[in-house]
Amino acid sequence: MRTSIATVSLSGSLTEKLEAVSRAGFDGVEIFENDLLGCPLAPEQVRGRAADLGLSIDLYQPFRDFDSTSPERLRANLRRAEHKFRLMERVGADTLLVCSNASPDAVTDDDLAAEQLRLLAERAADHGIKIAYEALAWGRHVNTYLHAWRIVRAAEHPNLGNCLDSFHILSRGSDPGGIEAIPGEKIFFLQLADAPLLAMDVLQWSRHYRCFPGQGGFDLTRLLAHVLRTGYAGPRSLEIFNDNFRQADTGRTAVDAMRSLIALEESVSETLPGGASIPPPMQPSQFAFAEIGTSEPTRLGSLLGVLGFARTGEHATKPVELWEQSGARILLNRVLPKAARGETSLVALGLDSPDPKASTARANSLLAPVLPRHRAPDEALLNAVAAPDGTELFFCDATNPLWRQDFSPAAPPDDSTGSVQAIDHVVLAHPWDQFDEAALFYRAVLGLKPHESVEVADPYGLLRSRAMTNTAGTLRLVLNMAKVGTRGLPGQHIALVDEDIRATARRLLDLPERVTLPIPDNYYDDLQARFDLGDEHHRELRELGLMYDRDEQGEFLHLYTLTIGRVFFELVQRIDGYQGFGMINAPARLAAQHAPSSADLPLEQ
Amino acid sequence: MRTSIATVSLSGSLTEKLEAVSRAGFDGVEIFENDLLGCPLAPEQVRGRAADLGLSIDLYQPFRDFDSTSPERLRANLRRAEHKFRLMERVGADTLLVCSNASPDAVTDDDLAAEQLRLLAERAADHGIKIAYEALAWGRHVNTYLHAWRIVRAAEHPNLGNCLDSFHILSRGSDPGGIEAIPGEKIFFLQLADAPLLAMDVLQWSRHYRCFPGQGGFDLTRLLAHVLRTGYAGPRSLEIFNDNFRQADTGRTAVDAMRSLIALEESVSETLPGGASIPPPMQPSQFAFAEIGTSEPTRLGSLLGVLGFARTGEHATKPVELWEQSGARILLNRVLPKAARGETSLVALGLDSPDPKASTARANSLLAPVLPRHRAPDEALLNAVAAPDGTELFFCDATNPLWRQDFSPAAPPDDSTGSVQAIDHVVLAHPWDQFDEAALFYRAVLGLKPHESVEVADPYGLLRSRAMTNTAGTLRLVLNMAKVGTRGLPGQHIALVDEDIRATARRLLDLPERVTLPIPDNYYDDLQARFDLGDEHHRELRELGLMYDRDEQGEFLHLYTLTIGRVFFELVQRIDGYQGFGMINAPARLAAQHAPSSADLPLEQ
Repeated sequence: MRTSIATVSLSGSLTEKLEAVSRAGFDGVEIFENDLLGCPLAPEQVRGRAADLGLSIDLYQPFRDFDSTSPERLRANLRRAEHKFRLMERVGADTLLVCSNASPDAVTDDDLAAEQLRLLAERAADHGIKIAYEALAWGRHVNTYLHAWRIVRAAEHPNLGNCLDSFHILSRGSDPGGIEAIPGEKIFFLQLADAPLLAMDVLQWSRHYRCFPGQGGFDLTRLLAHVLRTGYAGPRSLEIFNDNFRQADTGRTAVDAMRSLIALEESVSETLPGGASIPPPMQPSQFAFAEIGTSEPTRLGSLLGVLGFARTGEHATKPVELWEQSGARILLNRVLPKAARGETSLVALGLDSPDPKASTARANSLLAPVLPRHRAPDEALLNAVAAPDGTELFFCDATNPLWRQDFSPAAPPDDSTGSVQAIDHVVLAHPWDQFDEAALFYRAVLGLKPHESVEVADPYGLLRSRAMTNTAGTLRLVLNMAKVGTRGLPGQHIALVDEDIRATARRLLDLPERVTLPIPDNYYDDLQARFDLGDEHHRELRELGLMYDRDEQGEFLHLYTLTIGRVFFELVQRIDGYQGFGMINAPARLAAQHAPSSADLPLEQ
Repeated sequence: MRTSIATVSLSGSLTEKLEAVSRAGFDGVEIFENDLLGCPLAPEQVRGRAADLGLSIDLYQPFRDFDSTSPERLRANLRRAEHKFRLMERVGADTLLVCSNASPDAVTDDDLAAEQLRLLAERAADHGIKIAYEALAWGRHVNTYLHAWRIVRAAEHPNLGNCLDSFHILSRGSDPGGIEAIPGEKIFFLQLADAPLLAMDVLQWSRHYRCFPGQGGFDLTRLLAHVLRTGYAGPRSLEIFNDNFRQADTGRTAVDAMRSLIALEESVSETLPGGASIPPPMQPSQFAFAEIGTSEPTRLGSLLGVLGFARTGEHATKPVELWEQSGARILLNRVLPKAARGETSLVALGLDSPDPKASTARANSLLAPVLPRHRAPDEALLNAVAAPDGTELFFCDATNPLWRQDFSPAAPPDDSTGSVQAIDHVVLAHPWDQFDEAALFYRAVLGLKPHESVEVADPYGLLRSRAMTNTAGTLRLVLNMAKVGTRGLPGQHIALVDEDIRATARRLLDLPERVTLPIPDNYYDDLQARFDLGDEHHRELRELGLMYDRDEQGEFLHLYTLTIGRVFFELVQRIDGYQGFGMINAPARLAAQHAPSSADLPLEQ
């Protein structure tokens, strides 16, 4: 496939954008006019820069309010177009995007629109330029792609064709099936944009909320399949107006963009033969381990100890401890990576993969940075890539966990005190500009299924939270971000399955020092109002400091430890197949975590 | 008037909110349930804390999905209500907000709704509690205030009345005139919220975009007048769900809130007799001066010099220079306030007021901090207050400019080199969370008229910009904020009227060192396409580096200097009554300002 991206999709100067686009592996760009206007380089220099970077200039855009207009306005528009044709010759672009007229005085007359566009195409032909006519979703007269196609067909000029933009088609709820009525050679350009399904003014929706394919709610696979069936052979180009991308890191946005096109192409190749293939996703079956970097290993080890974990191994060559309890494995790395800025942080996840090498190869195809491993001679070979937030993902083999060979036994496992069985889920925290990128990453690279995004009130802002699970429901990741405020990044946490959470809660309360997050009494008053649990059950929850939720399937009991650095633990007990994550309790939990008394864990050996 | 505010309108813990609300002068609060759930204080302690702070607890809210339901659900709801009644007794709240049922299975039956609400009111009466029933704009069955009133009237219970919420009424376009049909004693509560006029899903609009009265597009003056004509004597309460307020400084948001109520009350008292009165607004007629704090006075003075300014005075007791050119006066303060963090910044504005003392008194009534002046014995008394961004506003007397007495003449004014006449407008930059506050401040305190907000693309984000002018159009302020990104705060600038901008531009270009912002050639290519200016005129603009705009009235020529610290100057020439600010040129200008070559002014003496 040929890939392209509109410069408006990225942050920065035109030259910064061209460099990032080239580095991410795109074949070409659409030049968005404002990017050129503010650029100190002459059009010929831009052309040269793009050529040096191996980029074609596939489209110049936008040219607005040309058609369906009065004779006087038409004259001015043709004059304006001549200037742009000359500019396009200088910059080396051979296709001009003309958007359907959105001004209130646009004339409602298809024949007139066709006649005027034919005139424009004739002038364009003199410069070797093609006109790609696009129906804006908010076009005054022409606002559906089939209407734009009828006008193009009526105008009948070889230099006039259509530009299809998935946003303008799908935001209006148009059926993309009709695309197949357009001959492929009359589709001059294809712009692909996704968007979350919002009920709002379509212009504002388009200008601020577009996102890369796979990050929103549109079925772009179906749309692209229809386009390809026409014989369209031009670029798949991304034109994304997004407030976050406007300010995000240019290079990583460009990589995110390219990843979205690779994943989209893969999904289309499942329905169409002949697409480029990449190694198929290997859904991980469970967490092999979670690794925490900490400069307070004694404190953290002490917390793991009271949760029932035993220190069962020490890495042969690195300052890493293995802590285990039944199927839950935590690594404590006594060296913190620089990015953690001195704060105890989750730094890596081990994921059991049916084929670790294939998992790594797929991640690599989807532009995940493969991590170099500084391996001691007899250390196990690990397949590791970096997730968007910097978390290292290790693909492990559950049937042959080579990584354990690096750990010399420190003590025999001792499960006598705890009832933790496994890691239930892991919650990662993302800055605002990496949330959609992360969701696409885990979906595309690991094949996880994204759940609905939910919003959670924090005393100092709003959190957005989205769960990603494998098909079997045995591996759950939750992605959090601070939508607004919340005083910095939300915490990261590891939730542990505890088959007897009541016993654990009681044991933890009996400790001389508090290790669990105190839940306000007011939470329990409200719980009693919401659920008729019976006095005894309710009193027990309150006494033990357990939070409670219920869904159609079953019940959920959970509690939280105090926080060390950025990390805390949750113990969860799912009863009768409860599927959620206790999100309804998150506001009270966040308020408790912000309360001064729980600022940090006092535990120290 | 009695004033109240819902705790959900502010950021922070419940106790932080109560303290800020009290400090801002409110009489009471609505307790939003989530704030209590996450609070470690018992309800009795919250009650005590509020009492200590002089706050009544006017409402407990929300109680959802009570009415229009099945018998089984009703039973559970009554049980839930009993828990809340007991809680309200403990916290000392005597009114419960009940929102109309928004669940998909709500029953469409007015008689049933009335019967169920009557039952609830009977139970509430046993606890001395009143039920205020509110129509949510997205209520399933009941979603208009008159419908809610019909049900309350039918239920006929002394403990049942209505809550009116301006957002739910005006967001649906309901005519607030009908409020007068409701007897005042049946209006148990009044919630006032404004909102920008957005076309979007009403639930999302309500939950994220509400703002304080006067900050949005609703006519709350009219609505409040209708409510007061019913004889309603309860609190005017603010219930504002706003993503910015959730994370903003609690104390300043509370003050902003109170200011909005004072201004609203004033606007209503113009139509209703007997309202509390504050000193009327005194629109400033022009800028007396603009003051820049700088640690680079030589560089800045040199720039002012080449623009044609002369250093005409030195302050008697402070390190402040006066620079003048015709009616434009700039003060250079060689001491930077701490807030400027070492960067040359605009620190004060002198505003010519018809009555400086009255201006100060009004600002004071509207909670603007009056600034203490450290006055030397024979220094002129100045009336000064702090604007939201910390800019000091000095109210001056144009007919008797006492402030000038503090400056001993340094040199006679020399107008020979420049053609600058006056300050045309001043552009202030605000962080995201002070933009609406600032617009309300300048409207309420100075009586300026707000223009439409516009959005401007910056290479690294989006700017929002809003002009505020006096009625005569002789004083213009522009408020900018970084809506997203833009790499820090936008620049501040002083635009100067230049009656011969061509001559000035030519003179500045002839200087040995560049002092004006270079405008990309591509801008002029586009300008030629957009306007048919004639080759000669166009060539001149390009040569001189002048930007151009046109509106229905006339034409606009402008140019920018390079930036020193956060400050730059603009020269503007308005021809034939052009009214705008050349916003269409802002993206190209911003791109030029971000270009590495114009990072800072090389001028040095």
